[in-house]
Amino acid sequence: MADQRPDQERIVAIGAHRAKPGAAGRVSIVGAGPGDPELLTLRALRRIEAADVIVHDRLVDPAVLDHARGDVRRIYVGKTRGCHALSQDRINDLLVELAREGCAVVRLKGGDPFVFGRGGEELAFLESNGIQTEIVPGVTAALGCAASAGIPVTHRDLAQAVTFVTGHAKSGSEPDLDWTALAHTNHTLVVYMGVATAAKIAARLAEAGMDRAMPVAIVENGTRENERVVVGSLGELGTLIGSHQIAGPAVLIIGRVAALARRDDLSQLAAQAAGRAA
Amino acid sequence: MADQRPDQERIVAIGAHRAKPGAAGRVSIVGAGPGDPELLTLRALRRIEAADVIVHDRLVDPAVLDHARGDVRRIYVGKTRGCHALSQDRINDLLVELAREGCAVVRLKGGDPFVFGRGGEELAFLESNGIQTEIVPGVTAALGCAASAGIPVTHRDLAQAVTFVTGHAKSGSEPDLDWTALAHTNHTLVVYMGVATAAKIAARLAEAGMDRAMPVAIVENGTRENERVVVGSLGELGTLIGSHQIAGPAVLIIGRVAALARRDDLSQLAAQAAGRAA
Repeated sequence: MADQRPDQERIVAIGAHRAKPGAAGRVSIVGAGPGDPELLTLRALRRIEAADVIVHDRLVDPAVLDHARGDVRRIYVGKTRGCHALSQDRINDLLVELAREGCAVVRLKGGDPFVFGRGGEELAFLESNGIQTEIVPGVTAALGCAASAGIPVTHRDLAQAVTFVTGHAKSGSEPDLDWTALAHTNHTLVVYMGVATAAKIAARLAEAGMDRAMPVAIVENGTRENERVVVGSLGELGTLIGSHQIAGPAVLIIGRVAALARRDDLSQLAAQAAGRAA
Repeated sequence: MADQRPDQERIVAIGAHRAKPGAAGRVSIVGAGPGDPELLTLRALRRIEAADVIVHDRLVDPAVLDHARGDVRRIYVGKTRGCHALSQDRINDLLVELAREGCAVVRLKGGDPFVFGRGGEELAFLESNGIQTEIVPGVTAALGCAASAGIPVTHRDLAQAVTFVTGHAKSGSEPDLDWTALAHTNHTLVVYMGVATAAKIAARLAEAGMDRAMPVAIVENGTRENERVVVGSLGELGTLIGSHQIAGPAVLIIGRVAALARRDDLSQLAAQAAGRAA
């Protein structure tokens, strides 16, 4: 990964290489979908194929980047928790700089750019700097994971609505959400980036009145080859994260529909039950 | 449209034509995305190209269907409000029948199959009948519309969550939702199929405490060539539907982020303001 991380000198060099004096650059903020490279849209594919520069995050599959021209410049600006390759301000500046040099820039993000992706902030900054910008939507992680786990996030009999929240907290401790409003019986809740705070989220929802027996599904590495679906109840959510060693990117699907999941873990659960019984 | 609507005889004839004795049919329940044919995923494209039969809804663009083989059988089962070409039970039976005849069946739906699309019901019915079924997720209407209107449905400063509801009511009068839970300041609400009930939804949200000045955006024919974006406030939502003659499929985006919309209606609003001032 190290050689994908730009330093300021290399960015300048890119500009020199790609500079098209007089040409108007543009930025496409593109959703790469939930993981599976086949869940890219046709427009996203077209923008990637035409790109001079791709500025991408951590969760974008290498097979997606492989659609680009051989001489495309790839700039990795991804982040792992607490460790940003580039700050958001520097990403914003970089996008403006590349566009001003006349490049066709693709800003490639996992999922959909407008769902917990800071796409709105980048769009606003680019437009305030007079850069022509478009948003190419993508299949958001919640829906990609729901599809491959077989969980309909809405259902006439079980869920009249679905809410997406992030479990990632600005302060680092727990997300600041109105748990009472979220603790509904007929309403699916999907938590992005909620592995670290899953136990706290489950506790807050239970305190707000949600049944501890409410079904939950954890979809780890959703839509990828190493996807895992773990199903249980709200009361055991924190425990499940630990016992199944959920470490990859995951979404939590909380609500009655989660009981409909195609379970990958039946044999594991059976083994655990046997272990407990012994 | 009339010749696209199947009758029972034609369905039987399709089966006879396509029958592959001994072959195992399968059903792919595929999201066609929000409207723009370029927002189809690569997997959806592949399934459509390989299909023997496509069973599709009203909101699927003809250009999407044109990816299919020349000899594909297209069966229209779409619905307009109160007028189903085929009941859900008959659609379910049709899918099973086609799969049992050995066909590669694509069940093509607008948006994402699991967001207000009855994909869950079709999946359950097919699996209970032993039919191999997969879900191919799609870009849901809310996110397609948000992208082309320039409205980030989540935003670190403005919206920590987003909820999708349907404005379509089973009883026909108004949707049965917990308005208090939905009337949040830092939470975007997207209403699918809400044109007919927009005025009632706005009234319920205002009664539940949402500021009547809360920004709203109406995105009609989102992502299509005839897309219109109308922006206003919650208090005037019902009036906007009428004054702008919103008649096509539309989503309502309610929340502070709606103020960020790229407005198509500025000239119209200016004209109206001039009219009111005169």
